[in-house]
Order: sequence, then structure tokens, then C-alpha cells
Amino acid sequence: MYRRENGVYGDPENRVSKNNPGKGSAPKAAISPTRSEDYAKWYQEVVRAADLAETSPVRGCMVIKPWGYAIWENIQRVLDRKFKDTGHKNAYFPLFIPKSFLEKEAEHVEGFAKECAVVTHHRLIAGKDGGLIPDPDAELEEPLIVRPTSETIIGAAFAQWVQSYRDLPLLINQWANVVRWELRTRLFLRTTEFLWQEGHTAHATDTEAKEETRQMLDVYADFAENYLAIPVVRGPKTDSERFPGAVDTFAIEAMMQDRKALQAGTSHFLGQNFAKASGIQFLDAEGQQRHAWTTSWGVSTRLVGGLIMSHSDDDGLVLPPRLAPAHAVIWPVFRGDDTRPAILEAIAQLAKSLRAERFDEHRNVEVETDLRDIGGGDKQWEWIKKGIPLRIEIGPRDVASGTAMVSRRDRGPKERESVPFADLPRRVTELLTEIQAGLLERAKRLRDENTRAIDDRASFDAFFTPKNEEKPEIHGGFALSHWCGSPKCEASIKEALKVTIRCIPVFGIDGVSAAARIEEEGSCIVCGGKSSRRVLFAKSY
Amino acid sequence: MYRRENGVYGDPENRVSKNNPGKGSAPKAAISPTRSEDYAKWYQEVVRAADLAETSPVRGCMVIKPWGYAIWENIQRVLDRKFKDTGHKNAYFPLFIPKSFLEKEAEHVEGFAKECAVVTHHRLIAGKDGGLIPDPDAELEEPLIVRPTSETIIGAAFAQWVQSYRDLPLLINQWANVVRWELRTRLFLRTTEFLWQEGHTAHATDTEAKEETRQMLDVYADFAENYLAIPVVRGPKTDSERFPGAVDTFAIEAMMQDRKALQAGTSHFLGQNFAKASGIQFLDAEGQQRHAWTTSWGVSTRLVGGLIMSHSDDDGLVLPPRLAPAHAVIWPVFRGDDTRPAILEAIAQLAKSLRAERFDEHRNVEVETDLRDIGGGDKQWEWIKKGIPLRIEIGPRDVASGTAMVSRRDRGPKERESVPFADLPRRVTELLTEIQAGLLERAKRLRDENTRAIDDRASFDAFFTPKNEEKPEIHGGFALSHWCGSPKCEASIKEALKVTIRCIPVFGIDGVSAAARIEEEGSCIVCGGKSSRRVLFAKSY
Repeated sequence: MYRRENGVYGDPENRVSKNNPGKGSAPKAAISPTRSEDYAKWYQEVVRAADLAETSPVRGCMVIKPWGYAIWENIQRVLDRKFKDTGHKNAYFPLFIPKSFLEKEAEHVEGFAKECAVVTHHRLIAGKDGGLIPDPDAELEEPLIVRPTSETIIGAAFAQWVQSYRDLPLLINQWANVVRWELRTRLFLRTTEFLWQEGHTAHATDTEAKEETRQMLDVYADFAENYLAIPVVRGPKTDSERFPGAVDTFAIEAMMQDRKALQAGTSHFLGQNFAKASGIQFLDAEGQQRHAWTTSWGVSTRLVGGLIMSHSDDDGLVLPPRLAPAHAVIWPVFRGDDTRPAILEAIAQLAKSLRAERFDEHRNVEVETDLRDIGGGDKQWEWIKKGIPLRIEIGPRDVASGTAMVSRRDRGPKERESVPFADLPRRVTELLTEIQAGLLERAKRLRDENTRAIDDRASFDAFFTPKNEEKPEIHGGFALSHWCGSPKCEASIKEALKVTIRCIPVFGIDGVSAAARIEEEGSCIVCGGKSSRRVLFAKSY
Repeated sequence: MYRRENGVYGDPENRVSKNNPGKGSAPKAAISPTRSEDYAKWYQEVVRAADLAETSPVRGCMVIKPWGYAIWENIQRVLDRKFKDTGHKNAYFPLFIPKSFLEKEAEHVEGFAKECAVVTHHRLIAGKDGGLIPDPDAELEEPLIVRPTSETIIGAAFAQWVQSYRDLPLLINQWANVVRWELRTRLFLRTTEFLWQEGHTAHATDTEAKEETRQMLDVYADFAENYLAIPVVRGPKTDSERFPGAVDTFAIEAMMQDRKALQAGTSHFLGQNFAKASGIQFLDAEGQQRHAWTTSWGVSTRLVGGLIMSHSDDDGLVLPPRLAPAHAVIWPVFRGDDTRPAILEAIAQLAKSLRAERFDEHRNVEVETDLRDIGGGDKQWEWIKKGIPLRIEIGPRDVASGTAMVSRRDRGPKERESVPFADLPRRVTELLTEIQAGLLERAKRLRDENTRAIDDRASFDAFFTPKNEEKPEIHGGFALSHWCGSPKCEASIKEALKVTIRCIPVFGIDGVSAAARIEEEGSCIVCGGKSSRRVLFAKSY
């Protein structure tokens, strides 16, 4: 069981508001229900309490609020730099895809065309009841689809742009919104509209396109570990889990605190499939006309969901400092009016000195000052629930002694450290670095403790079966088990347990002790057939 | 007539390619037709030759190519910082607007609901002919509109977010794509889908909302002048040109080289209209329930069109350095193989030293190195047409003398300056600053030379009537004339000459000598009625 670092603690004096954990005899958490009580509801409540996002009047679409959007902006900033450092350039392609484009690539249509937003008219007019109706005279000759992904429309552009081998490689990325009509939605994790980036590249050779596919998978894995503080397993998907139209789909898979897997990013080697469908051809150095080899890769606002589920605790959101909208908040603790000016002056000075400090490669320490006239307890719990990495309080005694009281979000709410003003900038960056590393460590530990090599079906079934069917319950994890390669066996496990093969971990699993045994002969967990390697099974989002 | 700085020049030795101006006796320009030959086609050709954007297979939607998108990214980066510095936070709202939302605000519907993309189905299925058709069983109960602007959907969110005066002001911005079904489209200037930002704010008082409206107008004007290098006139619109549902619309208006006005940004004071339609209410300090006062303001990818039309010449795009995707390009001029390594080494060193140099507040000098194995003439003309501010060539003699040959985009292609390697970083930033200032100066001169105070109808008609009706011809400009305030007179001018009141320049026109005479008694240019101030008339995009 995952150790709840913040799950149990005393009753700090400032837990007073009705919005906050009560003063009663049993210590409570700020988020109700807790993870172990109802993980799915806990997630919703963490999102709400941190003011990250909310559902909208449009079915399945979310409103991303400033604190949540700032996390996405930070994700964008870091990834965008990584994409540019690896030679990619941004461009922008139309929101709409003509229906005929989706009909071109048969396998792709099969996977995508079904649930999507279809634009059929280009005008509204007044109806009989005084409301508005789509104008029957403005029906489109060819319906347009709101892009679920842009392979087809970008393929059409690439076909124009690529003439000769000199035009290759073509390395393009797009930041955009996409729409996939989803029946069951959850904020950030699965929404009808979501924000993402989609990389699309074209190459002269098979090898180069495969290298690109792998390179971007590694960019994602590196970003997940070093910024999101989420350890991931990378590897190809099985045929049944492949992106429609791709030759190979690679994914990074992370374990959430309920031990389910979250697919956090994908990188596809498309072979010549899309190049043939779109007519992306080039004259090679020998004067031969050839089809290009293409790739595509993407991550989305789903990463914000993964971040929340990986690190948050029963008191709410916990943010990895490198992606936090702000690193620290400072607020005053007033006792009488005479010390007010000195406290406010100290806060202004400290905020200034902190903001001058570099924390990350491209980012200084970002500080909020919270001077609102509300109770200290409410204030503290609001910032805890928002997940800000450090909270700094300045009262009259602090000003007198020239020290600040610093609390870390990754420790219990009572724990504080007194830091001399002069040391604060250094200490703050030190603590941020420590918190960032600590979150990754903790997430790795959770994953490793819940990853098993399982070789018999009974243990496999037990691993993935909750003990109490009545009540949602955290169970399971990553099972490294043998599989014969047959889609039938894969489907039967999915049918029986809702467990799927998340990926074939050909690149190893860093830090998981069972990893050493992946490349091993064995028998398929379903049919007993021959298998030369274990694959990663899990329930998933 | 605007002085064509680059319009006439000699026949530089390296004009050799068939894609470039010919060697014939008559000096030609790189872009055909030239501005004076056919301004509209010249614009299209500048966009194409600079590889900024292209039309897409989706009617009215454009593909923004990397060189064009990088300009937009730079615009975003600078404006986003300005918005944040003035206390705004970014958020994201749904792409779709329920039809019923558009029905709420009567005046707004009138202006917007007509030409828009209407989503009526959420699934495609296989039709009889093997193609895909919208699934008749998946028709939406309520059609969704692809946002033409987000007042209504953001209003619904604000109504939830605002409860008390403590929640105000609420200062939100969104970067997004929007869709307005346009019949006649032109790349960047008017497209069915375009990219923009839309600020939406709510305030406790009328005064505060008006101040916000004005502040953001000033942010836009400052950005236009100091980054786009485009001087603008700011002021309110007349009633007939107001944003649907707004109490007051303010705009920044710029003069393009064909002397037409381009509305480059708008800031709307919405009064309580949208707050009432959406139910944005708050409890004030006295416990009274009140409607908030709201504003909205936006600029779009149209700014890229404005930038192109303001500065480009008959050789193609000219970029203001502060928004250029790259500031300088360096390429080698080889004469035999033995000096190659020394040249390449010098280029690598120079690029490195330039990139270490700060040019702008938040940006270092950005340098492209072009080592492609193509002719020097082709290379030169490609970069001229792409508008890069500085071109730097390094040949064997340059390496020997330790100097680089530098050419400025705002001067004729033959003009060069020899700069010692050691001086290059300093000289480059100096030149960039000079070019930025020079472009603004040139644009101001154009505007001032073509702005007239006109008081009689005959001169007014002559000013706005081309001499040669057969052939598109640059004519007109800004007319500062009297207007009685009647919509009828305004409409009659529009009908007769396609001339509209661009704005009421209540804040003055910096640098235009006629400005001193704006606040002056006079007679309406149409009906002769009393007028207490001149307004700005022009043809427009």
C-alpha cells in the first residue's frame, strides 16, 4: 500500500473554517472523500478545490480556469523549447477536415471518423418560434469534420511542400484544440474538446522516420520524469492498441495512485501509409519518385490530469515545482496595527529578492503575495488545496527576528522551518529542487511497490480483482506477464478483467526490479503458449 | 505618393536566377506585380514568396506556414507578457457555443449569429455509396456553433465565478481559434478560421470597466507602434460600426501602403448588457445585488497581414526586427575548396557570438545559418523575399580581412557594409534598432503624407475616387472631415464611395499635423449640418 505521507496528522491550531478539516477528535483531510474512500470522486474534488477547471454548459467540454491553464502553459513552454531544440518548427492547419479527406485512409477512418463533430451548415436564421435554426439554404455541399487529429489535412499540405529529397526531413509541430465526441468524460483525462500538440514529420527513409518516432518518445519520457515528476514505461503498443493507420505506436505509460495506467503520450511511426493516402512524394537523389515516410506524436491536456493524480494527496493538489504556476506564496500574519507596515515592507522585500532568483533553466522563482483580508486558516488551506510548493508566513515576531516561517506542500501542514531573511532565496530554490526530486522518488516508489511479475492466471486474476465489489477500491497495478502475441488472448483478458496490454516494454523499465526479467522465456498467461518476453498489463484510463 | 525606397535600383551582378529580377535593361523588382501595378495581387505574391501561409482545401481557411507562424508566436509572446503585466490571467473556454446562448443577447445575435459554422451531428457512418455520411441517429438536440467570439460562453462562466465584489475585477484572456463564415477571404486579413486573443473582464463599477477598455486600447496602440512599427489612430467607433451588443467600441486604425485603413485591434466597453444577458451579478460592499460591468478586447492573425502591408516593398516582405522570426542570416561564399573550413569556422563563431547578444528586452539576437548548396543569387533573393532584417555574407577575402559583409533589408539589395568580426554583435543590434525605428518613421511619413483635412464634398469625392477606373490604383488616404453625427449621412458616404468613418479620433493623432484641427467647429461633409469635431474617413479592409 502506498504510504500516505500526508494522510494522518494532528490537528493544527488554524484548522478553523467550515471549508477546512474540522477540529473534531478524528483528524480529517481537506479533501472529502479521500483517495482510499473514493478515488474517482477524490480526483474531481481535488480539481474543484484547486480551482483548476470545471465542466461547461457544452456537453463534455471543460473550462480550464487560470490556475489549471497556467500548468498547461508551463507544459507548453518547456515542450515547445524541446521541440525546437530538436529541429521542429510550429505551423497551423485548419480546424476543419473535409469529409472526403477522412475517407481516404481506410484504416484511419475506421478508428476515428465515427464519433466526431460534424459541421453541416454555415448559417443560422430566425426560426418560426423566434429562435435560431440552421438555414436550410446554407447546407454545406460537403460536411466538415472538426479535427479529431490532423494527419489527413497536414498530409495534403505536405504533399504540396515536398517535391525533392532536399525538402526532407520536414519537421512540423502544431499546438491546437481537437474534438472527439466522448460519451463519458472526466476533466483533463477525457474531454470532448481538448488541447494538445501534434507533431508531424516526413522523411526520406524508413530508418530516419523510425529514429524520429523514438526520439520524440524519449523527449516525452524525459519531460514526464524531469518536469511532471512522473516515471514512465516506454514501449510499442500491441496491434489492437495501435493508432489507426500507424505501422507502430509507441507510448509512455504512467501509474496513477489508484494503480491504474495512464497513457501520457504517444509517438507513431506511420510508415508510408499516410504518405500514400495523401500523395507525399519526393524525387530522390537518383531521380526516382518515392513516397515519404511519416511520423506523428502528441501529448495533451491529459498530462494535467496525470500530474494531479500522480502527486496530490488527501489535502488536495500537489504541484511539481518545475510546472507550478507559482512556486511560493507569502502572506502576513497581523497582530495589531502598529507592526503592519513593517510586515508589509518585509513581504515586499522578500518577494522581490525571491523573484530575482533563478530556479529553473528558463524561469525565475515565481511568488504570489496574498494580502487578502481573510482568516489565516482559510488562507493556509486554500493554498494547500491549490498545491503551491511553498507557503511563507511573516508575522511581527518574524520581522523582529528577521526570519520567515516556511512550510512545504510535500510535508504535513504543521511542519514549518524558520529561515533567516538573508538565506531565503537560496533556501527556497534548494527546497524547490528537493520537492521536485522527492515527488519523482515517491511516484517511483509507488510504481515499483505495485509492479509484479505474475506467471499464473490465478494470481493475475486476484491481482486485478477488488476485494470489495460493493465499494470502489484501489487494487492491482502493473503486471509483467507473458503473452503469446495472439489478439485473442489479449481480448479475453480485456473482456474478463478490463485489463489491457499497456505496452511491450522493449526499452526496459528503469528502476523496477522486475524489469530484469522482462526478456525471459515463459508461457502466455491466457493460453499457456510460448512467449519470449513479458508485457505490461494494467487497468487504464 | 509614397517614396519607393527599394523601388528603383541598378542591376546587381547576382540577379541571375529565373526566379529573380532579370538582367534585362529595365530594372525589375522581385515581386510581380509591384505595389503600383496591382496592390492586391502584390500582397498575395509577397505572402507566397515569403512562405508565410497558403490557402487550404477547406474553403476560406488558411495554412499558416512556419515563417508566418513564427511572426504570430512573437506577437503572442509580447502581448501575453503585456496582458500579464496588467494583471490578466489566461484561461480556456469551449470551442462550441450552444445555440440557445446566442439567442440570449438580441443585439449580439443580430450581428454574429448569421454566418457561422453549425455542428448538427456527432457521428459519421458509412453511407450507401461507401463514403461517410452524418449519422441521422446522431443529430444533436441543440445545434452547436463554432465560436465566432466567446462573450456568451465566457459570460456563463463569469456568472458562476462572480458572487461578491471581492471576486472583482475578474481579468481573463483567452488565446484561441474562432470561425466566422466569410464569403471573400484573403490570407491573414480575412479568413473563415483565424487565431486571436480575446480578453474578457468584469468590474464592480462603470468607471473601472471604462478604464480597462481604454487601458487595453493603449496596450494595443503601444504594441502596434513599438513592435509592429505601425502608427495607429485610436478612438471610438460610430454606432453603426460598433461591436454587436457593446456600448462603446474603440479601435486602433492603421494606414496600409495602398492608403486604406486596417482595423488592427478593438476594445469594447460592454456596459451591463452582457452581464444582464448572462446573469453576472455580485453582492456589493453594502449587501446590494448588482450587475457587473464588462469589457472585451481582441487582436488576431490579421495583425500579420497589417505588418506585411505596412512595410513590405516590391522585393517582398520587410520585417520589423522585434517581431522577425530571425534577425539575421549568415551564409558562406565559397571560392575553391581550400578556404571552405576557415569560412565555415568563422560562420560558426560569428553565429555563436551574435546569439549571445541581447537585442530586445526578452530576446537574444536570432541567427539562421544557410549552408545549402544553392547559388548565391538565389539564396540572397530568397532571404530578401522572406524579409529577414540583416543578411551577412562571409567569403575567403572576408575571412582574410576579418570582416563580414552586412546588408540591410530596408536598403537596396546592392548596399553593403563591411564590419570587423569583433564589432559584429554590437553593430548588428545597433542596425536592428535602427531598422525598427526606421520602419516606424517610414510608415508614419506615409500616413502623414496621405492624411488631409477636407471640408468640401467635391474635394472629398475627388480624394476617394481613382483616376483610372479600369485599373486598380492606389488613391485616397485618411480624410479628417466634419460629420453631423447622423447615421444617414454616414450611410450615404459608404454607399457612394465605400468610405466609412474609421473612428472618432478623440485621443488625437500623434504626429499628424491635421490633428490640431480635429476639435473644431464645422459643417457635415454630407448635409452641411453642425459638427463640433472632425472624424476619420477612409476606405478600409
